Amino acid sequence: MSASIEKSIFGTERDFTRWLAKRSAGRARGLRLGIGDDAALVESRAGFQWIVTSDLCVEGVHFLANLHPPKAIGHRALARSLSDVAAMGGLPRFALVSLALPRSFCRRWIEAFFTGIFCLARRFNVSLIGGDTTLNAGLAMADVTVLGEVRRGRALLRSGARLGDYIFVAGELGYSALGLHLLKSSPADRSVASRKAVWQHLYPEPQCRLGALLAERRIASSAIDLSDGLSTDLNRLAEASGVGARVWADQLPVPSPLISRGSPPSTLELALQGGEDYILLFTVPRSRINRVPHRFKGAVIHRIGEVQESRLGVQIVQNGKPVALRPEGYDHFRTGASWRDRGASDPAT
Amino acid sequence: MSASIEKSIFGTERDFTRWLAKRSAGRARGLRLGIGDDAALVESRAGFQWIVTSDLCVEGVHFLANLHPPKAIGHRALARSLSDVAAMGGLPRFALVSLALPRSFCRRWIEAFFTGIFCLARRFNVSLIGGDTTLNAGLAMADVTVLGEVRRGRALLRSGARLGDYIFVAGELGYSALGLHLLKSSPADRSVASRKAVWQHLYPEPQCRLGALLAERRIASSAIDLSDGLSTDLNRLAEASGVGARVWADQLPVPSPLISRGSPPSTLELALQGGEDYILLFTVPRSRINRVPHRFKGAVIHRIGEVQESRLGVQIVQNGKPVALRPEGYDHFRTGASWRDRGASDPAT
Repeated sequence: MSASIEKSIFGTERDFTRWLAKRSAGRARGLRLGIGDDAALVESRAGFQWIVTSDLCVEGVHFLANLHPPKAIGHRALARSLSDVAAMGGLPRFALVSLALPRSFCRRWIEAFFTGIFCLARRFNVSLIGGDTTLNAGLAMADVTVLGEVRRGRALLRSGARLGDYIFVAGELGYSALGLHLLKSSPADRSVASRKAVWQHLYPEPQCRLGALLAERRIASSAIDLSDGLSTDLNRLAEASGVGARVWADQLPVPSPLISRGSPPSTLELALQGGEDYILLFTVPRSRINRVPHRFKGAVIHRIGEVQESRLGVQIVQNGKPVALRPEGYDHFRTGASWRDRGASDPAT
Repeated sequence: MSASIEKSIFGTERDFTRWLAKRSAGRARGLRLGIGDDAALVESRAGFQWIVTSDLCVEGVHFLANLHPPKAIGHRALARSLSDVAAMGGLPRFALVSLALPRSFCRRWIEAFFTGIFCLARRFNVSLIGGDTTLNAGLAMADVTVLGEVRRGRALLRSGARLGDYIFVAGELGYSALGLHLLKSSPADRSVASRKAVWQHLYPEPQCRLGALLAERRIASSAIDLSDGLSTDLNRLAEASGVGARVWADQLPVPSPLISRGSPPSTLELALQGGEDYILLFTVPRSRINRVPHRFKGAVIHRIGEVQESRLGVQIVQNGKPVALRPEGYDHFRTGASWRDRGASDPAT
């Protein structure tokens, strides 16, 4: 909170806006007016719908300022919203970033945060078109809004799963939660396996192109992104579709026990409750499963279960025995704490 | 932070989402999918452009939890973004609200906050289509994103002011800042004049219909909403248009000295630096000034100045003498503090 750090923050809001506008420059298709006026102006394309989503990223809840590099915080803040667009089967186009920061955050932190945003945005052809900034007296916080496009009638909803559909997941489960655990417990561990998990946690890759493929070719009947853990998100999908679901424990792509050594939750727990994987969970009618790719952009696609009758609820089959799989991942308004609340990122502990 | 307050917060995120979805129900035109999936889905109208804007509302900066009623905080959070849409000449359609709250905020607070949002939204035909919620350990914070529509080519930009245009303001200046001052210094004052100022501060009315009229009938050449004070926002408009501007001190609709008794800043200071008035400042070519209404929905429209050459800068004419009018309103990234920073709402003091 020294004066030198204070002076090192952007001189005025105008300087900051200019700096942002310059970095986000480049005329994107359909963008009539970007940063600098009262609001942005965006054109629509005939035959397409807009997907709109906002996601918060709060210090002490979604990141720790002394653990997460600012570039990763920016990346993750945008990735959360891009992943929502992926889960709807669309392609992201525009982003707005609102940032509230205590004075103790310096200009370098802000620049690194936006570098994380811009690097990810560029790879997905997303333009930054607005947002807001303010100094606050509390903790750092970002809210990212993303607008994406999907062809009319092709959006993947949570509510489309039908009895008999198979359930797929695109990638491995629990790596982000494991990465967070390793980052906190053994930051010096530089093994390949550990680095993979930490990287997955810091720089998750939203699966927008996979989502668009599943929607465009009418492969999936429903989809959701795994932001709060398989147990929570599968229950959400099943509820929205009015169906039950069962997953087979031995088919879940869990982290190898070799990597998760020293981790208090088991690898299965990580796979079921660990959130922030930002990979797609989707259902496919049996008649279309041969259209599902085995692999997509490095992610192996696993068939992990099937849709069942609503009265059976959501279950996990372990050693041939189905047991209820309750939502136990991250839920910000739940007062009871899951292991992630307790162990990982609850600011109150 | 007692257990009883904690228990009184929404049981789970799902309960909260359901409560929100129920209150925001009703099929709005062009809304394909609202709250409850990964994102919202919105249709576009041929011949229209989307206006997109996000605005933060942070405890200690934009409101004080012990001074502002939660309903007013919700109203003001949405009004900020609606006012941006008004300044672009559009009509608002959809809103997303992201809310980060410490556990000490109870369910009643949240309900009153959203009541403020829903009451204002309903009057402007705005549908709540998404957002995010999280508990945090810091101060309360809301980020509101609004999507509005404007006919293609009709948007009012900050950059359209031209030499010789007259400058207008729709309503009275400085009432919000005065209201905040009265709220803090003499909360028991129930005089009509005091109540008017306090009401203007707590429940500002975005001028969307006026903005749409000015755009639709091609009356204004440029517009901005007064969120940070006339001195700051007029400088922004002049800079964006590449022109200078002069306002006549004796033409400014300032609060009567009778009302502002006991207020440390003068009424002129209030008019120039007091922010959060959320009324429109716009320029009109001389050939069109007879199209400007004298009054619109209760607000008297005042001609307060004219656009001048860029080399003369932005000036205020007092007793026949023009002096430079520098931006001195609220600017969150400026380290020097204006009177509003010092006296009103800086959490650091």
